[in-house]
Amino acid sequence: MILGKVIGTVWSTKKDENLVGSKLLIVRQLSLDFKEKENFVVAVDSVGAGEGEVVLVATGSSARQTNSTKNRPVDAVVMAIVDKLDIPVH
Amino acid sequence: MILGKVIGTVWSTKKDENLVGSKLLIVRQLSLDFKEKENFVVAVDSVGAGEGEVVLVATGSSARQTNSTKNRPVDAVVMAIVDKLDIPVH
Amino acid sequence: MILGKVIGTVWSTKKDENLVGSKLLIVRQLSLDFKEKENFVVAVDSVGAGEGEVVLVATGSSARQTNSTKNRPVDAVVMAIVDKLDIPVH
Amino acid sequence: MILGKVIGTVWSTKKDENLVGSKLLIVRQLSLDFKEKENFVVAVDSVGAGEGEVVLVATGSSARQTNSTKNRPVDAVVMAIVDKLDIPVH
Amino acid sequence: MILGKVIGTVWSTKKDENLVGSKLLIVRQLSLDFKEKENFVVAVDSVGAGEGEVVLVATGSSARQTNSTKNRPVDAVVMAIVDKLDIPVH
Repeated sequence: MILGKVIGTVWSTKKDENLVGSKLLIVRQLSLDFKEKENFVVAVDSVGAGEGEVVLVATGSSARQTNSTKNRPVDAVVMAIVDKLDIPVH
Repeated sequence: MILGKVIGTVWSTKKDENLVGSKLLIVRQLSLDFKEKENFVVAVDSVGAGEGEVVLVATGSSARQTNSTKNRPVDAVVMAIVDKLDIPVH
Repeated sequence: MILGKVIGTVWSTKKDENLVGSKLLIVRQLSLDFKEKENFVVAVDSVGAGEGEVVLVATGSSARQTNSTKNRPVDAVVMAIVDKLDIPVH
Repeated sequence: MILGKVIGTVWSTKKDENLVGSKLLIVRQLSLDFKEKENFVVAVDSVGAGEGEVVLVATGSSARQTNSTKNRPVDAVVMAIVDKLDIPVH
Repeated sequence: MILGKVIGTVWSTKKDENLVGSKLLIVRQLSLDFKEKENFVVAVDSVGAGEGEVVLVATGSSARQTNSTKNRPVDAVVMAIVDKLDIPVH
């Protein structure tokens, strides 16, 4: 999964009928020290994530394994809100 | 999903028989401030998107989850037309 | 899908038994002005594409949605021969 | 599969209900001489891998082919702990 | 598919139970003139490929379409040994 930060939402009226009601989040990729990268992805929310939250994004067919995304034409889903990273010093 | 802009179409007479009637859009990837990137993808239209419109593209097996693309050999579909991005200043 | 140009073929005697009879094309990626990029992919032909032709390549599981590729261990298929790109000046 | 090294874990309380109990590992990609690259991925553990161990990560739908990940919204799984690489000099 | 060269093997005792008996090959990506690139992938062998051989690797769910890989958590398979590339001069 990708580590990212929710920075906004996409508004869309005209979209696939199965996507009505889905929240489309703009998620910027993060480095391990939480610096925002240039890359971003638009992902469907499945856990109630809001702006500024650090999240995990699953992509590809795995993005369709939640109740909010099953059988829908979406290739990215926010499936976890991150509390913290635990990275011991070596 | 990828944020992109429809910039043209691909004409093809000789193609997989299941693709007859599908509109093949050329979609250039966009940055969050709507600058066109070098990257582009050819995607099947499923929402009536036209040139100049900002859209979302789903890729991989997820691209086959619309009525226009089910069971077809396509790996990218335009599944939403974007009205606006809502990105609050932090 | 990827825009590319067929530049050659791969010869292979020892391959997965389901691939016997499949034509393996070398496809170099193209920019929108038909310049050949460094990247290339080996893709199974499903539309009778030959050398020098500009084609579309579908990748991933979508590459298995043609009669020539169903249930086979291939991740790229040439599924359309391109007649022309139609890109209006803005 | 990707060659990587487990460098930590992700803590997440609010996540897809099917992921409760899954261990989310932070895996940094390795070169063949075991130098850590910048890239990393968050992957579900399926073999009891711990910090500092060199592992293989399978991505995409293949990441859902273990008992720990079946039908879950995850796109990366640690499915092997590496004992050694055997690379003869040519 | 990716063009690559088998340069070694991965030894792993602790791995997904369905992978016992699978040979894990280290495959370095090749350019069209057979220069080795930096990128590599670990792929399951399905055609008896050995070190030094030039091969094709299928990735993603397509990697699970061989007898050696069906239903297993692997995202790359060597499914052809390459005899030669046939690239005419233009």
